[in-house]
Amino acid sequence: MSDLEHKQAIHALTCRYAQAVDRRDFPRLADLFTPDARLTGPGFCMDGPQAIAEGMSALGKYSATQHHMHQQLVELDGDAATGETYCVANHLYEQDGVQRKLDWGIRYQDRFERWQGRWRIAARELVVDWTQDLPLRGA
Amino acid sequence: MSDLEHKQAIHALTCRYAQAVDRRDFPRLADLFTPDARLTGPGFCMDGPQAIAEGMSALGKYSATQHHMHQQLVELDGDAATGETYCVANHLYEQDGVQRKLDWGIRYQDRFERWQGRWRIAARELVVDWTQDLPLRGA
Amino acid sequence: MSDLEHKQAIHALTCRYAQAVDRRDFPRLADLFTPDARLTGPGFCMDGPQAIAEGMSALGKYSATQHHMHQQLVELDGDAATGETYCVANHLYEQDGVQRKLDWGIRYQDRFERWQGRWRIAARELVVDWTQDLPLRGA
Repeated sequence: MSDLEHKQAIHALTCRYAQAVDRRDFPRLADLFTPDARLTGPGFCMDGPQAIAEGMSALGKYSATQHHMHQQLVELDGDAATGETYCVANHLYEQDGVQRKLDWGIRYQDRFERWQGRWRIAARELVVDWTQDLPLRGA
Repeated sequence: MSDLEHKQAIHALTCRYAQAVDRRDFPRLADLFTPDARLTGPGFCMDGPQAIAEGMSALGKYSATQHHMHQQLVELDGDAATGETYCVANHLYEQDGVQRKLDWGIRYQDRFERWQGRWRIAARELVVDWTQDLPLRGA
Repeated sequence: MSDLEHKQAIHALTCRYAQAVDRRDFPRLADLFTPDARLTGPGFCMDGPQAIAEGMSALGKYSATQHHMHQQLVELDGDAATGETYCVANHLYEQDGVQRKLDWGIRYQDRFERWQGRWRIAARELVVDWTQDLPLRGA
């Protein structure tokens, strides 16, 4: 595989992360991580694919989520890679009869590893630069 | 062409869709679809490039639009392909003297076909997970 | 290098622009431009990497920025290229004790040149279709 193909595979991995989360497909989500993977963010730290899948299932309290994946810069180093991935994550919910959207402005700090022939997430840290919580319709 | 080149061509097709719509270049928009293409979304269904171009020209009621294309996951199958493309579409308008922006959170469900040597959109369904309509300046 | 590799390099250049700005790494930002580069936008015009880096350092008045880079369409022409790049830029700040986010909806009109073996930005014009300024938490 060329460098370009490796980077494309890592980018696709990131897209599958978003798709699995937004579709609440947690078995498929778990499959994207290495056995010793870690997912950390503001106030949480999850170790291993099962704990990550269970932890992310907390998003079920939202009526829907959308993880919009933006630019990704990756440095390849053999069967490992590090990178930064920009994302805005939308969380839809209702409060006091008002439909609202909570947005997270994220820069994922990622470490990837090629494990059993396939790129996986070995470590993902959510750097959340801002959150914004507004009604869906405002005056 | 390699798989990577096909995927890049399909991604570029998606970018041209956004560019044509946002520039109100409807002849160029029509040229991105197969003759039997279908575009469907909440409350609308358009068949064929001409009907799609005419239908999309309804966006002319907005002072501007921006279609921000985000991640795309595509499965190639010879001269056909299916995929999901994330997008946030901004629609600018004025109401009661207030400038407002209506956003759509979209996951396009796409079918692409290679027709006359060029990838085109054969079917695009807009799954709209949320809309948000807020003033451009709020207290 | 193949066309695909050139386009990937230009896309990575665009990602590095965002990363350098958001990390306030202005020497690294300056290094992304050709010696005669120009950056223009609403009410500003900066000539040369040093002036651009100094001008962009005005973003220091915001507590944070995030430049979310979206789709990019590039036309290659030997050691030059032109393109359009969509972006939403977030600017975080506080006013009267309220945390706010100012968003810019940008379509960069770009000219790139390969200089000393590396793609750089030769001209970048910010077309800002909309700005939106809202509190981080609203009723």
